[in-house]
Amino acid sequence: MLTQIGKNAKKAERVLMTAPLVLRNRALGEIARALRESCAYITAENGKDIENARAKGMSASMLDRLSLDEKRIEAIASAVESIIALPDPLGRVLSGGVRPNGMKIEKVSVPLGVIAVIFEARPNVTVDAAALCLKSGNTVILRGGKEAICSNKAMASVMRGALAKAGLPEDCIQLVEDTTRESATALMKMNSYVDVLIPRGGAGLISACVQNSTVPVIETGTGNCHIYIDKDADVKKAVSIVNNAKTSRPSVCNACESLVVHSAVAEEILPLIKKALDEKNVIIHGDEKCAEIIQDVVPATQEDYAREYLGYEISVKVVSGIEEAIDHIMQYSSGHSECIVTENYTAANLFTAGVDAAAVYVNASTRFTDGGEFGFGAEIGISTQKLHARGPLGLPELTTVKYIITGDGQIR
Amino acid sequence: MLTQIGKNAKKAERVLMTAPLVLRNRALGEIARALRESCAYITAENGKDIENARAKGMSASMLDRLSLDEKRIEAIASAVESIIALPDPLGRVLSGGVRPNGMKIEKVSVPLGVIAVIFEARPNVTVDAAALCLKSGNTVILRGGKEAICSNKAMASVMRGALAKAGLPEDCIQLVEDTTRESATALMKMNSYVDVLIPRGGAGLISACVQNSTVPVIETGTGNCHIYIDKDADVKKAVSIVNNAKTSRPSVCNACESLVVHSAVAEEILPLIKKALDEKNVIIHGDEKCAEIIQDVVPATQEDYAREYLGYEISVKVVSGIEEAIDHIMQYSSGHSECIVTENYTAANLFTAGVDAAAVYVNASTRFTDGGEFGFGAEIGISTQKLHARGPLGLPELTTVKYIITGDGQIR
Repeated sequence: MLTQIGKNAKKAERVLMTAPLVLRNRALGEIARALRESCAYITAENGKDIENARAKGMSASMLDRLSLDEKRIEAIASAVESIIALPDPLGRVLSGGVRPNGMKIEKVSVPLGVIAVIFEARPNVTVDAAALCLKSGNTVILRGGKEAICSNKAMASVMRGALAKAGLPEDCIQLVEDTTRESATALMKMNSYVDVLIPRGGAGLISACVQNSTVPVIETGTGNCHIYIDKDADVKKAVSIVNNAKTSRPSVCNACESLVVHSAVAEEILPLIKKALDEKNVIIHGDEKCAEIIQDVVPATQEDYAREYLGYEISVKVVSGIEEAIDHIMQYSSGHSECIVTENYTAANLFTAGVDAAAVYVNASTRFTDGGEFGFGAEIGISTQKLHARGPLGLPELTTVKYIITGDGQIR
Repeated sequence: MLTQIGKNAKKAERVLMTAPLVLRNRALGEIARALRESCAYITAENGKDIENARAKGMSASMLDRLSLDEKRIEAIASAVESIIALPDPLGRVLSGGVRPNGMKIEKVSVPLGVIAVIFEARPNVTVDAAALCLKSGNTVILRGGKEAICSNKAMASVMRGALAKAGLPEDCIQLVEDTTRESATALMKMNSYVDVLIPRGGAGLISACVQNSTVPVIETGTGNCHIYIDKDADVKKAVSIVNNAKTSRPSVCNACESLVVHSAVAEEILPLIKKALDEKNVIIHGDEKCAEIIQDVVPATQEDYAREYLGYEISVKVVSGIEEAIDHIMQYSSGHSECIVTENYTAANLFTAGVDAAAVYVNASTRFTDGGEFGFGAEIGISTQKLHARGPLGLPELTTVKYIITGDGQIR
């Protein structure tokens, strides 16, 4: 069954690979239209998922994530249309030239091939991932969570119908209907049919993919993001950036999880930060020095420094200088987003050179690590690995390259 | 033990990551000098490997691969010096701009971090891989084959001494002295310390890495390369390219393993190709149509079409048109190098668009797929996977990126 899906994907790949932009964009337009037209059908199928989830006692916030209504489907359709407006990631000549023997070499961007996306209970990912893969000439195998299976089946069938209408193979988009753990594991081993695996979800899912996949994986998501407040920090900027990075949306991967403060400014700044964070009842896990300066500090453990709270909690460490700050960050960083607040030129440069992460900030909130905010127009996730792509994954990151060499009989 | 090597590598990474080019180049210069100065020591240690190998009955060609003499050490040292001359792959600003809110974003090339290289019995790889990693700011963990252990230990210790002399940590280059299968497998699971694994060797080694590694792998090497002779091929070019691609160095991955011939020209061209290949006693595994045209054809099986002979053998298939040729190639290609010989403009474009491989040639030998021939100056292997890098891996392919975002207090 899964093998057949793999074969179908490879077959469709051959067609999609050479489909010009106008055809891929037409298909995206048909998908947006079909989603709107099938709104009643999709919401009805989504209702079944909601009913099942409720019966199983799913939390209100999870139920909200799972729910689709007319407004959300309109938002999903609009997002597909916004992808139409983005430039073609394919066929870009990335470099080229003529070799001494007269051969011409061009390095050109081409699709990755077949992308498998394993995700959890957010049905909007189904369309989002499919649209990004389609635009970048990749066929996609979607494997969503069991909680959203009815919604996903409905949306996948609507999208497949739209592909056919546009003149592309339906199998450019396929959904794995088997939502057992076995189907996910099997997908991770389908090296003959799957070129790249992108997990979208929590730390457990991502770690399972890294551990079990023989297919190359793009690791996404985990963000243990730090803000270091240097001795030369502007106090106002520091408080505002920490408050924004921690509390504007604590459940996301670019939220700040840990604060590192220079001891020379800790007494001035920590009380101001505490005051700001208190408005959202943020729990502060601090070291001893932190606890000497502000009240209500829970003692921070090693685990705290390693933890991605994804909620209204933060760890705090007071350090004696920028070197100790960088050492601490490099020890606990997940390589997502790290920030220094400073007015000192040399400190800023030391930090951006010495901290190794996808995004390194000077005087700006870590919350900006996002494809939209970076100007990519769309993203399929945020890579925290170093191979292939790092940071927000836009359309160009869904391509690979091909060298095209043209000669007139050259031999070596 | 291996964990300690991992920790050392990560520690050295912190220093090497920010070492300017002048320091990395100085270290390369010291390495070249030290290799020349230690020639007697290295050849003596290599002599122990040769003695052991001979006692175990190693073949003459393998013994030759394993041997080091003054001339070969000079060649290795010269290769290190040629890497000094290459441009710095680090610190390149790949893109950048100012966001509407005034934040400046730069995408900059940075080292991958710690690279593990697992290789077999070619001692020149030890220095070659170490020098390329050093130039690109990566610390390296080398794990060579047991056949070359004395040679590798000697060269690694010489290189480590040179690093210290240049003022860089010795642990920028480490050798795993345990050459059991267990050490290789353990290295493949060291996600905390190893950022990327590059296997260099035969199909068995590469497949073991893909199957067992949880560390991201760059797959290198397997080349089942095809040449398709179109109906509009120039006969002379076709014969010359096939002869060169098959016989100039049959043991390498960019050698041609399979010939696909349009039926309209098979009767004219196959006898000429046979005549050329006969000079090297190339065994031809052909289909029925091929056997009707030329003599001494061994019947080709499915296995033949899938096989990388790496020797004086070739498979031949006669096809009815370019579509069948592309289908056949896509079925059996390992995604390395594929070639069309044609004077027809549309056929050339159909082929370069429809064949998905690292290198696609029109009218030139597949033997050109090589970092040196592509003008990269050096290569650490040829990637046949699509993630991260495809084709020859030069210095830029040993880097990843970091986004550096500088603001003046921006929040989201």
